[in-house]
Amino acid sequence: MKLAILFGGASYEHEISIVSAITVKGKLESKFDLSFIFCDQDHKFYLIDGAKMKAITFSRGEHKKMGELFITNGGFEQRGFFGSKKLEMPILNLIHGGDGEDGSIASLMDFFHIPFIGPRKEASMLSFDKHYTKWLAASLGVKTLPYEILHKEDKRVVATAYPFIVKPARLGSSIGVSIVREASELDYALDVAFEFDSVVLIEPFINGVKEYNLAGFSARGEITYSIVEEPQKADFLDFEKKYLDFSRSGSVEHAAVSDALVTQLRESFAKIYLPLFEGALIRCDFFEIEGEVYLNEINPIPGSMANYLFEDFSGGVQKLLGSLPDKKAIRVNYDYIHSISQAKGK
Amino acid sequence: MKLAILFGGASYEHEISIVSAITVKGKLESKFDLSFIFCDQDHKFYLIDGAKMKAITFSRGEHKKMGELFITNGGFEQRGFFGSKKLEMPILNLIHGGDGEDGSIASLMDFFHIPFIGPRKEASMLSFDKHYTKWLAASLGVKTLPYEILHKEDKRVVATAYPFIVKPARLGSSIGVSIVREASELDYALDVAFEFDSVVLIEPFINGVKEYNLAGFSARGEITYSIVEEPQKADFLDFEKKYLDFSRSGSVEHAAVSDALVTQLRESFAKIYLPLFEGALIRCDFFEIEGEVYLNEINPIPGSMANYLFEDFSGGVQKLLGSLPDKKAIRVNYDYIHSISQAKGK
Repeated sequence: MKLAILFGGASYEHEISIVSAITVKGKLESKFDLSFIFCDQDHKFYLIDGAKMKAITFSRGEHKKMGELFITNGGFEQRGFFGSKKLEMPILNLIHGGDGEDGSIASLMDFFHIPFIGPRKEASMLSFDKHYTKWLAASLGVKTLPYEILHKEDKRVVATAYPFIVKPARLGSSIGVSIVREASELDYALDVAFEFDSVVLIEPFINGVKEYNLAGFSARGEITYSIVEEPQKADFLDFEKKYLDFSRSGSVEHAAVSDALVTQLRESFAKIYLPLFEGALIRCDFFEIEGEVYLNEINPIPGSMANYLFEDFSGGVQKLLGSLPDKKAIRVNYDYIHSISQAKGK
Repeated sequence: MKLAILFGGASYEHEISIVSAITVKGKLESKFDLSFIFCDQDHKFYLIDGAKMKAITFSRGEHKKMGELFITNGGFEQRGFFGSKKLEMPILNLIHGGDGEDGSIASLMDFFHIPFIGPRKEASMLSFDKHYTKWLAASLGVKTLPYEILHKEDKRVVATAYPFIVKPARLGSSIGVSIVREASELDYALDVAFEFDSVVLIEPFINGVKEYNLAGFSARGEITYSIVEEPQKADFLDFEKKYLDFSRSGSVEHAAVSDALVTQLRESFAKIYLPLFEGALIRCDFFEIEGEVYLNEINPIPGSMANYLFEDFSGGVQKLLGSLPDKKAIRVNYDYIHSISQAKGK
């Protein structure tokens, strides 16, 4: 089975995506005939030799010596002196953060009729911006923490009680996130967050809150759930720790949780996933507060595809590939133009 | 000043876009050096000879004899035996409905670093889906009518009192819209709407409600507003009437409204427009109910760019072109990969 892993992107998570792609390669190469497509920060695409799938290939710029690819209707194309060769295979979108998760790659794949694993454009936009995720969750009856929104040009007045978390609205991987414990820390936290986005989200920080991650995907009308993970944490993962986290390939223990909680987590996951996220394998990160489940974040392209949470990761990817959503084709018949031309001809 | 009008698209509003492009050509050609890029229903692009900008060119398929264009970094490219020629000029996105207004074209233009007039991807997504527009308006404190959402697979139970309007969530130009006056009409109206979308929006129909349209754009830190139009209406415009509406190029009367109402309309417009719609010329359609302004719809690419509402339409387009939003460039420095490689080397 052929599959091309698309990674890189013009994003603060560019390096994380490289690490993620290398990890997923290790998990899938025995079952798939893999190709590797690197998107650089200027949005040039390169076909990467599997043997060169190492972080230093990219940090040294060696990818530039490999074949450039061009996106065209039906697939990526390699051009040569003697004509062009098309890569006709589905894509696994593994570009984290900007480009990959903001709807750009989804739009490109859909527009050029390239089948892909990953969130579709609406799903991308609603999960990429944490503010929109709040709207989505509220409309689905999924609980989230209360929040405030602050724009760069707003007065820096926060109503939420200390301690609280300050997050750029549109970034993942904990980039630009701070815990603010007292007033003196606020300005710095906001300066950091506004470095990355013009909109920040403020939420209460709940000391020692229980966190549970659950991944899954839908194929053939049925959701395959991962095990429930209780992530290790300091207060929260900073970028460097998360970076290492993206290279995870081992397996983790099923969290010691009650069946009732697993049911609650799965129900919340299903509400969010269906039908918006069809075609994607996503991870939802939840809090548990007094027996109730709260959505923290949706990761529509989780680090290394959360492979370590699935018993049969490569089998799951195969299943998902066989069940990608179709985009409804719209045929144009020019009825109105014909009728108007006829009316004019009278 | 060079400008390329992009029109067509795989959309139910494909034909409307052709009419719109022909109209806008007439309004801009004396001031601009125009090019015309047609996107067909298969997402192939063609460079159209200005003299052939007639509806029958497309309904007869004559565009296929003209030069095919390919989208590449920095602009559309025409390929020939003796190399390729790049069209380096800004684009006016005039693809109504799917592709143009759903964020696809915005994603493509941004991804390939092509400057364009039109809604950016988030603005597109939030205005293309009438359900998301409700979320947006609520978050901005702009009033809208109460509504219900019905999914294709839901039981057909509606709580809204008769008469009400049934609309596909993601279509413009009144396609698939019905007024339901009594229970016996419900099934048919829903069948029609579900032909076009899996999600429909239901809103009360208010007989004789006052409607006002206001268009505008922001350039150099200031919004240029159009005149306020009171659109002619039957109950509402059906597709055929709206189709003719898209070819409007005359000018209309400023509606006889109080200064206070104009101020209210402009305030609501500004709340919606800034900063989400920067780069676009949009039209907002409002209701007035008991002296209060309600947002009905956002048209992020209004028919024929609402040219007939502006005193100096071509001057406005020039101003807007000079004030297009920049996409923040993200530079990747491979710091983490370097630090990890070094740590491993120790």
